[in-house]
Amino acid sequence: MNEITKIEQALSSDANAKASIGSLLDKQRKNYGLQPEFYLSDHIYRLDIEKVLMPHWQCVNHVSAIPNAGDYIVFDYDRESVIVVRDADNEIRSFANVCRHRGSRICETSGHARGGMLICPYHAWSYGLDGSLAHARMMPRDFDKQGFGLKPLPTKVVQGLIFVSLSDTPLAFDDCEENINATLGIYGWANAKVAYQSSVVFSANWKLALENQVECYHCAPSHPEFSVVHGQSTATEKKLIAEMNAKAAAQGIRVETRDHWALAALDGQEQAYSNRYPMTANACTASKDGSPLAPLMGKFQSYDNGMAVCYIGPMNHCLSYGDYGAIFRYTPKSLFETELAVIWLVRGDAVEGKDYDRDELTWMWRVTAGADKKIVEDNQRGVSSRFYTPGPYALPIEEKTVRFTEWYMSSLANAL
Amino acid sequence: MNEITKIEQALSSDANAKASIGSLLDKQRKNYGLQPEFYLSDHIYRLDIEKVLMPHWQCVNHVSAIPNAGDYIVFDYDRESVIVVRDADNEIRSFANVCRHRGSRICETSGHARGGMLICPYHAWSYGLDGSLAHARMMPRDFDKQGFGLKPLPTKVVQGLIFVSLSDTPLAFDDCEENINATLGIYGWANAKVAYQSSVVFSANWKLALENQVECYHCAPSHPEFSVVHGQSTATEKKLIAEMNAKAAAQGIRVETRDHWALAALDGQEQAYSNRYPMTANACTASKDGSPLAPLMGKFQSYDNGMAVCYIGPMNHCLSYGDYGAIFRYTPKSLFETELAVIWLVRGDAVEGKDYDRDELTWMWRVTAGADKKIVEDNQRGVSSRFYTPGPYALPIEEKTVRFTEWYMSSLANAL
Amino acid sequence: MNEITKIEQALSSDANAKASIGSLLDKQRKNYGLQPEFYLSDHIYRLDIEKVLMPHWQCVNHVSAIPNAGDYIVFDYDRESVIVVRDADNEIRSFANVCRHRGSRICETSGHARGGMLICPYHAWSYGLDGSLAHARMMPRDFDKQGFGLKPLPTKVVQGLIFVSLSDTPLAFDDCEENINATLGIYGWANAKVAYQSSVVFSANWKLALENQVECYHCAPSHPEFSVVHGQSTATEKKLIAEMNAKAAAQGIRVETRDHWALAALDGQEQAYSNRYPMTANACTASKDGSPLAPLMGKFQSYDNGMAVCYIGPMNHCLSYGDYGAIFRYTPKSLFETELAVIWLVRGDAVEGKDYDRDELTWMWRVTAGADKKIVEDNQRGVSSRFYTPGPYALPIEEKTVRFTEWYMSSLANAL
Repeated sequence: MNEITKIEQALSSDANAKASIGSLLDKQRKNYGLQPEFYLSDHIYRLDIEKVLMPHWQCVNHVSAIPNAGDYIVFDYDRESVIVVRDADNEIRSFANVCRHRGSRICETSGHARGGMLICPYHAWSYGLDGSLAHARMMPRDFDKQGFGLKPLPTKVVQGLIFVSLSDTPLAFDDCEENINATLGIYGWANAKVAYQSSVVFSANWKLALENQVECYHCAPSHPEFSVVHGQSTATEKKLIAEMNAKAAAQGIRVETRDHWALAALDGQEQAYSNRYPMTANACTASKDGSPLAPLMGKFQSYDNGMAVCYIGPMNHCLSYGDYGAIFRYTPKSLFETELAVIWLVRGDAVEGKDYDRDELTWMWRVTAGADKKIVEDNQRGVSSRFYTPGPYALPIEEKTVRFTEWYMSSLANAL
Repeated sequence: MNEITKIEQALSSDANAKASIGSLLDKQRKNYGLQPEFYLSDHIYRLDIEKVLMPHWQCVNHVSAIPNAGDYIVFDYDRESVIVVRDADNEIRSFANVCRHRGSRICETSGHARGGMLICPYHAWSYGLDGSLAHARMMPRDFDKQGFGLKPLPTKVVQGLIFVSLSDTPLAFDDCEENINATLGIYGWANAKVAYQSSVVFSANWKLALENQVECYHCAPSHPEFSVVHGQSTATEKKLIAEMNAKAAAQGIRVETRDHWALAALDGQEQAYSNRYPMTANACTASKDGSPLAPLMGKFQSYDNGMAVCYIGPMNHCLSYGDYGAIFRYTPKSLFETELAVIWLVRGDAVEGKDYDRDELTWMWRVTAGADKKIVEDNQRGVSSRFYTPGPYALPIEEKTVRFTEWYMSSLANAL
Repeated sequence: MNEITKIEQALSSDANAKASIGSLLDKQRKNYGLQPEFYLSDHIYRLDIEKVLMPHWQCVNHVSAIPNAGDYIVFDYDRESVIVVRDADNEIRSFANVCRHRGSRICETSGHARGGMLICPYHAWSYGLDGSLAHARMMPRDFDKQGFGLKPLPTKVVQGLIFVSLSDTPLAFDDCEENINATLGIYGWANAKVAYQSSVVFSANWKLALENQVECYHCAPSHPEFSVVHGQSTATEKKLIAEMNAKAAAQGIRVETRDHWALAALDGQEQAYSNRYPMTANACTASKDGSPLAPLMGKFQSYDNGMAVCYIGPMNHCLSYGDYGAIFRYTPKSLFETELAVIWLVRGDAVEGKDYDRDELTWMWRVTAGADKKIVEDNQRGVSSRFYTPGPYALPIEEKTVRFTEWYMSSLANAL
């Protein structure tokens, strides 16, 4: 039997799961990649979803995607589907997209609840925007609608970003909230609007997608477009950082940084991280040549030739340039499928075609996400080989990959 | 481990299967939907095929699809394939579509046995229309062809409908036969001909397809085309029923009804059910506006503004209007794939283009089957969620769904 | 539980695997086909790869496919991928296509190593043509590149054919080498060149593809194109064989035959087999009408109206006609997927468009491989039926199929 067959067999029994995962974790060398089973086992994937990822928050979108009461977004995650709706009081609420009658999905894609009702297309059970069951045609007289509202899910809105958890006992979000306010708040995200969104599915395990995401060791060889305007080595950038901060300070702007990401998360809190990076080559923003793409956002009155990155939990991060923002949303679909959605934000009053060109605005991160898809899929194919052995991460540039994998292993070990 | 993982693990051992299924069945609330495992577990799907569905009869087609000696139909079911052939004596016979030499499928699609031989395309072993091995080229002299005929399968023809069982000990068919004669016989199905057939594959478990099929609670919201001409509420239809029966009686016609479906099946017998329903809005038949589509069939000399439905076993039902009939044939393909084939019948001497227009004839049930595919697939996606909890069926209109699920659970429990 | 479910369950535990496989093997009747589980069980497929196939050699291609230093081929096998490269000293070397850093595939498709480096596209780790790690940018100073070369794989070149093993302890190759020299050597394969290559994926287990490959019982019904110019019954061909040998002898040519295939392999040696067959109908080569397609190869100065076949191990064989050769390379992809690649060879100095027409050259084996795909897939569908029972092989014409299946069962039994 090969290793994957062995681990699947061992994990098929709860009694053995803890010992089996334990022996995998024992093999781990410090600062080396994960054992292949973590990328290949369907049982481990189910544990990932159930035990590792469930307590976390997912960034779904920006409130401007559902501007009117009754507008809703459908957000799919693994086998789950969530309806995120703006109610009549402008509150954002989330519900499991599962009818309480026969279990059908209620909403197929994002849309608008006509008449303020979410109506299941199967038998027309109709729910109010607060999730309560309003009508259930032809049910017996003694049927009590009270007990049959849609399952509500924990929901937060911070600086216009909508966060949902699929757990009834999610991590506390205070630290994240504070961090988002202190970073994306400066960039005016609360008043931004969605300019575009697109997604790509990587045929790879979610952990390989994330390991790719959190390091820029691959940026020079894999992302030449990115590398024109973004720096990669902190060592050579001290001067650029100082200039960036001076330009911001001259406008009275100070963007906070914070490092409560991965194992550094505060006790019981969702992970929060933010940092600032200088653009290179006098670039104002992430465009082909660094020239501006859209009106300045938030408190900025001129470009500081820098950007901010803000991580929220393991699966989401936001990039903020002077003139636009980008939400990166990773969602596991199955053992070997992970979706990356990118959502572009501009200033709330910016007009497409006049203030910004959509293709130019989105070019950098469309190109980069496409390149990452190829890289990550090659990685998945490689780790499936019997000849894969975990290798050493390049430190310090892959430090965040080490932190990610250590967080992952620790979460899994603690959950068993 | 989540619930599906647990049940798969429990069911991977025969010793545990009975207890595991038992504990699922114990969770069942009366008049509520099935536990999610029944729609999601591959082990349960295999039990469904082996233990629940095998003893039943499948309606394959109408004899007019194979009018000449040597004509054959290929009927696929789960992993199985059956050849249904008309032999030289005009008898309909069925055989496993598996060569006795190397196991190849012999016939790929329906066709005609040239020279009265079913010839395996691989090595040309040739079988007579009675299944016997007629030629096996180059076999050793001591090879005895006697022992190598095709596996014959139980086969029945009633009112032109061909039924096959994949079991050596199928249920008795007498009650069904009597019922078919007393209903479809009146409509002249023995002398009908196939006008068209088409099929659609639902990406859903067979039980969700059937639960959809047996109730008309969804007809108003999901099938507006259907609802123009068909009634849905028995309460308001008493007058229409009386009128329908009077119009039939005036022609000397009386169509039987019978309720031996699901758990009401007679001891050891295949399920038999028939009923009559009035069309609404003075509709003669199931067409866009209720106007006739084809010549009257059977004993009818004028429209009685009614229809008959006849169920045979769990997976088949037939609709009979005054001028056309439709066979509905559900076949499981895999855990998450179910095929619905619809076969349209008209009077045997009707001529396409002159007596009926094929597109108009088939419009209603093509549209309706397509809508059902979407509904049932949304249902499958919904029950895959951790937030799915079985809900209450709407009684009395979903009464047959309750009967179907109770029959299913009882069959599974008895088979273990 | 059906038989497949039972065997999967039994094989999921190492402790039971030996007994379970043993009881399957006990059911085997002499000169009859394999039990269905061998074609359907995923566990058995993994055993096939790990235990049965690993020690063998795979023919990858001909050296003329990589004529210059730095040229490389990517060869995929099951979940594995191999880089076969010509180094600066013109030696052919093979490496696992897995980066030692994060495990990414290094080469996606065949190509040329620019600057003599195999560079992983992910983080640009760069390997020399000897597999050693030459550069690893930004790694810490204390990183020792010595320990991080690409995994080298056993590699042989005989008469221009490149063989690779995925095992560290492959079978000895001496007997094969001797045999290849004594057959394909006569036909001048060392100086041939690749004229074309194509591949087709059979949706079937590798054993069904091989059982098809090693017998010509199916040639008459399934391959009419082939049958025009190739004989099929040794009995009627004695005269043709004598003529062929006389025509070869007149040119001073004697092609060896050898029968060390399947269980007849010499102790610890890879299987070697070669034979000569006469063409029929005065055909010179395998073309539509038997007329020549390309310049004569090797020692031949005129057509002897014969051909040679040379088997190397279980998965590869070569056909040599007077004017062209064809390498057949079977690779398992997954339980139900097997790739057949065909690589056509002509004399090294032949010029396409002048000395041969590519479409005409490749016609016979493109048509035949396409027909085999259909046959083998029909076979796979058939053996998935509950009604499949292993049948008797037609002896003597299916003798090699018997030898193949006996070798397979013996290898599996010995490996447990």
